[in-house]
Amino acid sequence: MAQDNTPSPFSCTLILGGQRSGKSRHAEALCRATELERVYIATAAAYDDEMRNRIADHRTMRSDDGWQTIEEQHDLASALVRELAPEQIVLVDCLTLWVTNRLLADANMNEEFDRLEETLLQRRGPVVLVSNETGLGIVPDNPLARRFGEYQGRLNQRMAALSTHVDFVAAGLPLTLKETAE
Amino acid sequence: MAQDNTPSPFSCTLILGGQRSGKSRHAEALCRATELERVYIATAAAYDDEMRNRIADHRTMRSDDGWQTIEEQHDLASALVRELAPEQIVLVDCLTLWVTNRLLADANMNEEFDRLEETLLQRRGPVVLVSNETGLGIVPDNPLARRFGEYQGRLNQRMAALSTHVDFVAAGLPLTLKETAE
Amino acid sequence: MAQDNTPSPFSCTLILGGQRSGKSRHAEALCRATELERVYIATAAAYDDEMRNRIADHRTMRSDDGWQTIEEQHDLASALVRELAPEQIVLVDCLTLWVTNRLLADANMNEEFDRLEETLLQRRGPVVLVSNETGLGIVPDNPLARRFGEYQGRLNQRMAALSTHVDFVAAGLPLTLKETAE
Repeated sequence: MAQDNTPSPFSCTLILGGQRSGKSRHAEALCRATELERVYIATAAAYDDEMRNRIADHRTMRSDDGWQTIEEQHDLASALVRELAPEQIVLVDCLTLWVTNRLLADANMNEEFDRLEETLLQRRGPVVLVSNETGLGIVPDNPLARRFGEYQGRLNQRMAALSTHVDFVAAGLPLTLKETAE
Repeated sequence: MAQDNTPSPFSCTLILGGQRSGKSRHAEALCRATELERVYIATAAAYDDEMRNRIADHRTMRSDDGWQTIEEQHDLASALVRELAPEQIVLVDCLTLWVTNRLLADANMNEEFDRLEETLLQRRGPVVLVSNETGLGIVPDNPLARRFGEYQGRLNQRMAALSTHVDFVAAGLPLTLKETAE
Repeated sequence: MAQDNTPSPFSCTLILGGQRSGKSRHAEALCRATELERVYIATAAAYDDEMRNRIADHRTMRSDDGWQTIEEQHDLASALVRELAPEQIVLVDCLTLWVTNRLLADANMNEEFDRLEETLLQRRGPVVLVSNETGLGIVPDNPLARRFGEYQGRLNQRMAALSTHVDFVAAGLPLTLKETAE
């Protein structure tokens, strides 16, 4: 990939947190704190009414707030290739729903993770990734849930390793786990 | 509400933690570290023998230790209005059981949370709130458990936002998430 | 127990983390950072093929890397009495599987924990303990899972109390919860 001589605006921020921890709100605030154009990649698929309502709520919350929204439930890497650019900041909300979508589509998860990682490492512009920490409860009996937990944990480790900044959010309060001096 | 001219002793501390994380013990230690009279608001309802024994154990642990105990499973706001006072410190143990009790009673949870928040913001005296962090495992299939998780997470965010101090406790060890200079 | 006059090389490090959090990798790295001989006490029992494969994978990962591996699914205290020594560092991976094994064997868990604690407090050499934090999800309906959660939480508190260093690992990133100056 061609590189210009200006300092790279690249940064990759991972926001980890539990269900209803305020992680998305924190990620949105980080994006708004920049002067960049804001692109929101929504990975939620509406499996039921609860989810449909949740998606609609989120869309309403972002309306009139200057976000361009892209819905991409499966091909996240391609969406990132198209959207990552120095002049805009991309928020992916969230990796957990994307993992769920790909797992239910019977995808080869390791290949999926490799491709996502390669795309992010190409460093075309700043990105904020939201992901659930799901490994801190009792592991459920359900084999699919266990497989999900394995993949979610592995992806979080890989994303944290390549990220320049990682925050863990509990009750809306961020705790920095990794900070890379630029 | 009438206000006197002395500096307010108000503080609201939220202690977040998992099941058997030592969060209650940490909260009790914080209260004992003050010179104030100690009031314990117990929200546990005895649904089964396991719970009945747990409640009895806790009562024994507090006996001979100078706590006044009040049992209030539902109307937490009224108990706080009565008990919050500058000369005493009130420990609420815990918000999670209160959420469970109100959810099973089919209460309007948003109204419940509004009322609790308003009561705490009246700042009549110091309070320590204990609450479970429950969002860091795999979300269960059970719809009631999912609704519980949603409400628990939202309440934790609201309580953390208004608190002057927030600790997260794991394996008995506190980690400060928020500290407000007085 | 006889004590010599040289400074004790004793240290007990507890690594807490979720499923697939990178806690074992972090623990292994801590051991490799010392000049000591490395002993790995594996507590995993192969209940099914998934577990058998996992155990085999781990064994492969440690091969050619200088670890002596001991498999001990039940009598952890005796293994520690044998292996803890100033010239070597012992990694126990993990306490969670040991709790599971002992619970399924219908052991008296409090006695088990007492014996483990006494063994560690004899301070014969450095040890690194890996354990899951499992209390941060919604408590499952399953009574055995609930009992497991209770014991796991209590053991983590006891081990954290006696440890000289405690790290919490999320997405491969350690966060220090306790650090004792030597």
